[in-house]
Amino acid sequence: MKSKFHSIDGLELAATSAGIYPNKRDDVVLIKLDDESKISVRLTQNAFAAAPVQITKKHLNSQVKYLLINAGNANAGNGQAGIDAALNTCKTLAKQANCSEENVLPFSTGVIGETFPTEKITQAIPNLLSQLSETNWREAAKAIMTTDTKMKLVSKIVDLDGITITITGMAKGAGMIKPNMATMLAYIATDADLSQAELDEAMDEAVNISFNRITVDGDTSTNDACVLISTAKHAFDKTNKENYLVLKEAINELYIELATAIIKDAEGATKFITVDVKDCIDVNEANKIAYSIAESPLVKTAFFASDPNWGRILAAIGKTNIKDIDIDRINIYLDDYCILKQGARIDTYDESIANQIMQKKEIIVCVEMLRGNASTRVWTSDLSHDYVTINAEYRT
Amino acid sequence: MKSKFHSIDGLELAATSAGIYPNKRDDVVLIKLDDESKISVRLTQNAFAAAPVQITKKHLNSQVKYLLINAGNANAGNGQAGIDAALNTCKTLAKQANCSEENVLPFSTGVIGETFPTEKITQAIPNLLSQLSETNWREAAKAIMTTDTKMKLVSKIVDLDGITITITGMAKGAGMIKPNMATMLAYIATDADLSQAELDEAMDEAVNISFNRITVDGDTSTNDACVLISTAKHAFDKTNKENYLVLKEAINELYIELATAIIKDAEGATKFITVDVKDCIDVNEANKIAYSIAESPLVKTAFFASDPNWGRILAAIGKTNIKDIDIDRINIYLDDYCILKQGARIDTYDESIANQIMQKKEIIVCVEMLRGNASTRVWTSDLSHDYVTINAEYRT
Repeated sequence: MKSKFHSIDGLELAATSAGIYPNKRDDVVLIKLDDESKISVRLTQNAFAAAPVQITKKHLNSQVKYLLINAGNANAGNGQAGIDAALNTCKTLAKQANCSEENVLPFSTGVIGETFPTEKITQAIPNLLSQLSETNWREAAKAIMTTDTKMKLVSKIVDLDGITITITGMAKGAGMIKPNMATMLAYIATDADLSQAELDEAMDEAVNISFNRITVDGDTSTNDACVLISTAKHAFDKTNKENYLVLKEAINELYIELATAIIKDAEGATKFITVDVKDCIDVNEANKIAYSIAESPLVKTAFFASDPNWGRILAAIGKTNIKDIDIDRINIYLDDYCILKQGARIDTYDESIANQIMQKKEIIVCVEMLRGNASTRVWTSDLSHDYVTINAEYRT
Repeated sequence: MKSKFHSIDGLELAATSAGIYPNKRDDVVLIKLDDESKISVRLTQNAFAAAPVQITKKHLNSQVKYLLINAGNANAGNGQAGIDAALNTCKTLAKQANCSEENVLPFSTGVIGETFPTEKITQAIPNLLSQLSETNWREAAKAIMTTDTKMKLVSKIVDLDGITITITGMAKGAGMIKPNMATMLAYIATDADLSQAELDEAMDEAVNISFNRITVDGDTSTNDACVLISTAKHAFDKTNKENYLVLKEAINELYIELATAIIKDAEGATKFITVDVKDCIDVNEANKIAYSIAESPLVKTAFFASDPNWGRILAAIGKTNIKDIDIDRINIYLDDYCILKQGARIDTYDESIANQIMQKKEIIVCVEMLRGNASTRVWTSDLSHDYVTINAEYRT
């Protein structure tokens, strides 16, 4: 993951330690948006949205001026006390920053169900306010990490008819990853002057082919949030439709880079698996098959073992309850090597070739269903001993 | 697991080694039914039913005289060659046993996608036929094991108005376990004289509260089969309705004992988890919630670590996409200890009590949704290092 980045005009960040973690590290982040900014937000669809997510939903009706983010405590499952705690941090910030609490969006990530450290966070606010700077992206990307081992920060520059547009984004996440119209935490900003409708459209398009197509463990978090910001500093020629398409393409690429960075850093992962499912009746069907493969513990342990156990892939397709699946039309490839042709292992199957592919760190599984024109791509990780260790010892 | 058993009048078994495994062990089983027998069979709903499952479906239209079972090779994903291979074993048996191939049901369990060892099995048939005996249940229960560490054999005797009725059953399975109207492999027999309709009804009722309520890894096998046999040797008074109810209750109990034995022997399992979900609008909703908890890798690793991380249980409930879930009505118990009351951790929460419960080998998670009268019970295992090891090294 490249950690070179370009600042975004009109967006400042700060990171510091509020002492949420026993070992001192940066764990709170403040992001300040210029007044002209527009924002598009997608939040978790887990029914038990954490307290900060519930507050963010309400505050989105006002002009957003600050994002206040903490790692180490999810503030989820804390009932009314959690809501009060999150609101308190917004109030304290609003007072010191001379705005209303409705201008602040709170975000939290970390352990569920532990008392929220309100005071630690409010005490860090003066520090955050004094350190705001356009150049603090790297510090912020590090401070929002939990079980992540690598920070996830991506920058892109595009030229739109002579106007230079910058897009920079950061994300965190390594476990409890199966976002649904949202991600763990991701903050992407551009200085391009986009309308709210354009921003929302760019968000929807990008999130659906990136954060909504990754899974580590099939567990959707209570705190997922994805934020796309336009600081509107740089206008570009919108009469040339091509400009908006180029910008959206760059945003899509940046989203995919951040989303796949989460999978490459998935808890305990030793392999990065791309699951392509082609020739389905519709995308819904393609996704069902792709996720059934990507979430099968048996498929994932086979990848961990570098074992080309394609029978498990076949079983994962078969358990989807999709009507009229015909095994005799299915082809399965590992990278470019066709293993299963029309439902049966190819006559010339050479397990040593399959073994060689399985040894790789990045592998593409491709399934051709030959029943339609829809396709999808989903990214996942393997299931390793370290996944068990990390998640067995998470709170200790 | 008790391994005392009672023979069933009219049902003979044999087990021997066909040499399917590299280390010699019994790996083929023959079961012979008396002519009066009736049989009820439930098969996997995985779209890629293995070759023996496809043949069993057809042969069920004829009188069933023999069941031919092998471990070590699933004969799945082998295309037409697999069908031919399974049919060949039926034909060879039929010739030597003086019946038609349609009188034989074949069953296989083991690795998917490896060439079926037809000759090894046909060569073992004379041995099997010569060893048939009513007392070979234990040998048969051992021979059908794959990654199982314990054989699963249960017997019950009920007295119906002075008539002694025996029910004996065996099962195998430890991984790729989430049966759907079927199990891995289970064979249950009674000498009670039941009509086909009574037998089918008893099967449906029992399978729905036993084999259809267990999950190790959410992976439905291509080879699941559950067989209930009545040898019809012992008639009982059917004018007393109570007799049939007592018999069904005993069959239900035996099914549940076999199904939970599979979970207790689940690959790598260190804990046996019962998930009770109560007060739902309908059973479908209760099952969705129960399976979401029972299949969450994060919940399962927390149980492995004896960590009362109830936030993960909450997140698993929340990700079910069930409409209008109200967190403020949810209670969660570990055994009898209420941890979450109306959506928030109880004020007097004492983690040392929760920790003590989590240390136990058998734990009940109870979720009260307070939105209706439907409930369900599902059994699952934890997710341990040994699960990863077993499934990473399965074929090596």
